[in-house]
Amino acid sequence: MTTHNLAPFAGTSCIVTGGLGFIGSNLALALAAAGARVTVIDALVPTHGGDRRNLDREDPAVRAVVANIADRSVVEPLLDGAGYVFAVAGQVSHHESMLDPLGDLEHNTRSQVAFLELLRAVAPDAVVVHTSTRQVYGRPRYLPVDEDHPTSPVDVNGIDKLAGEQFHLLYSKVHGMRISALRLTNVYGPRQCLARDGLGFLPVFVRRALRGEPITVFGEGEQLRDCVHVDDVVHALALAALSPDAPGEVFNIGHPEHHSLREIAGIVVGEAGQGEVTTIAWPAELVGIDIGSFHTDFSKAKRVLGWEPSIGLAEGMARTIDFYRERPWYLPST
Amino acid sequence: MTTHNLAPFAGTSCIVTGGLGFIGSNLALALAAAGARVTVIDALVPTHGGDRRNLDREDPAVRAVVANIADRSVVEPLLDGAGYVFAVAGQVSHHESMLDPLGDLEHNTRSQVAFLELLRAVAPDAVVVHTSTRQVYGRPRYLPVDEDHPTSPVDVNGIDKLAGEQFHLLYSKVHGMRISALRLTNVYGPRQCLARDGLGFLPVFVRRALRGEPITVFGEGEQLRDCVHVDDVVHALALAALSPDAPGEVFNIGHPEHHSLREIAGIVVGEAGQGEVTTIAWPAELVGIDIGSFHTDFSKAKRVLGWEPSIGLAEGMARTIDFYRERPWYLPST
Repeated sequence: MTTHNLAPFAGTSCIVTGGLGFIGSNLALALAAAGARVTVIDALVPTHGGDRRNLDREDPAVRAVVANIADRSVVEPLLDGAGYVFAVAGQVSHHESMLDPLGDLEHNTRSQVAFLELLRAVAPDAVVVHTSTRQVYGRPRYLPVDEDHPTSPVDVNGIDKLAGEQFHLLYSKVHGMRISALRLTNVYGPRQCLARDGLGFLPVFVRRALRGEPITVFGEGEQLRDCVHVDDVVHALALAALSPDAPGEVFNIGHPEHHSLREIAGIVVGEAGQGEVTTIAWPAELVGIDIGSFHTDFSKAKRVLGWEPSIGLAEGMARTIDFYRERPWYLPST
Repeated sequence: MTTHNLAPFAGTSCIVTGGLGFIGSNLALALAAAGARVTVIDALVPTHGGDRRNLDREDPAVRAVVANIADRSVVEPLLDGAGYVFAVAGQVSHHESMLDPLGDLEHNTRSQVAFLELLRAVAPDAVVVHTSTRQVYGRPRYLPVDEDHPTSPVDVNGIDKLAGEQFHLLYSKVHGMRISALRLTNVYGPRQCLARDGLGFLPVFVRRALRGEPITVFGEGEQLRDCVHVDDVVHALALAALSPDAPGEVFNIGHPEHHSLREIAGIVVGEAGQGEVTTIAWPAELVGIDIGSFHTDFSKAKRVLGWEPSIGLAEGMARTIDFYRERPWYLPST
């Protein structure tokens, strides 16, 4: 649970889409612990990583509604009177997006637009924060990557997430709604789906270490990444919702520490006290979409929102490992 | 009819989506005149500007199929054996896109992805050229705008067209298909729908001049635009299809002449020999989406495709006025 001060949300009505998933459930629990009335809307699409246990086995009371965010008859009454809306729902798998481009477009763009239209009709004054992704940048032209870096996605997921983000910002600018967007780098921590591949490399690394299996990185594993703990992301979502300067703006959310994939794997293995790091050659089908190194310039979030991450990778990973060891149901049974 | 040499298309099988519309019909007729077997696929969505008369009243034989490009049962057999596919279909109205964002997404993105999936399955070796738009850039950060300018659309149409373009280029890069995209500036010429507003300012200017009505520009009409005649666009589409260096690339298609909107209106009035130019204050609801001045750096198209426009605005507008005067059915009856 985040230790950040979410007291301003006490007594407010908050909606979290994707609230049975990784980031959404951490946010929903933190808001509820701070005294907010929280409703999550989550379609529980099997490949998206959501899980009822993310909320069911925790103390704070959160109302969970299983529905697609575009389902007007269900969603419209839920939005009535909402003070804050965190639009976290989405398909995050690169791999799934390439297998099912129309499905990815449905979840990351079309449903988002339909949801925005519902918001515009029912709760135009709600404060909205949308979670976007560093994938919208594609292969970096310079490092660290700031928000002015050109957007040039290299996969279906990046195209659809970018369109979804642009719709959110457009509705802020054209319709006067209070909407901001956060472009998240690689996020890790409690309540991430460990059972599936394709939801980012970090849960795969954590799962393999927890099971004492080798972690395999492609090539020499030299590509740099910055990783941010989900509690720091929850804090960023809260600050974006509370800042009067956030609407209409997009903010990178990353970390000043950056490590090679091989180093990150080593940290996971070290904190788990088991497993090992191995390398294999790049699979031919992935060479074309490798983006090389990435790390984030998040100085805009620091300047405008007063946000910066407080959890380093080694500490955050130790807490993450502890969390899953106490909750073995997150690990797949085989 | 274009006078450019399209001889390389003689005997080839060409598909033109949106081929009952403005640019598509000009292209289809030019390809057919050059001896290609041309099939157009057009959904004749009322707001998109397509019109059967664009082909029906012309000599060259073109097969026209009225269908949505995403309609697999109709489209798949048509694509079988296609050598060249010109993906021109789309919703072009800014205004319509804001009124019906889900409809715009359907036509400019979802249907395009479904069509790409059909192409990938049935005609993966076809050469494909997609028509994109300068609207993907949004408000220019510098002039002239080259292809490296950041994309930052300011309306729904720009977001959806950008996503559609990115899908085309992604399918080239990831699936090895021979697909390129042209970002067109303001296009004018024969076979443009004059009866509807919302399809760009040029057909409105032409219609008003042909009817002897005043042409109204907002503010002082100082915003710069470059305008390109549809015959030059047809030539660019042909060169992009024929160039081995085009696949995977996006090219700006514009004109070295740029004029203020007030000057452009004056040229239209001058060539028509009737009408007048007036100014009114900017409508409040349009101020937020005005992009200011725009003109195009098309040096990449010149360098890679060997393309440059051959028709100046005054000459092209004179030919355009003549075309419509000979075909009064293009003008609305009231």
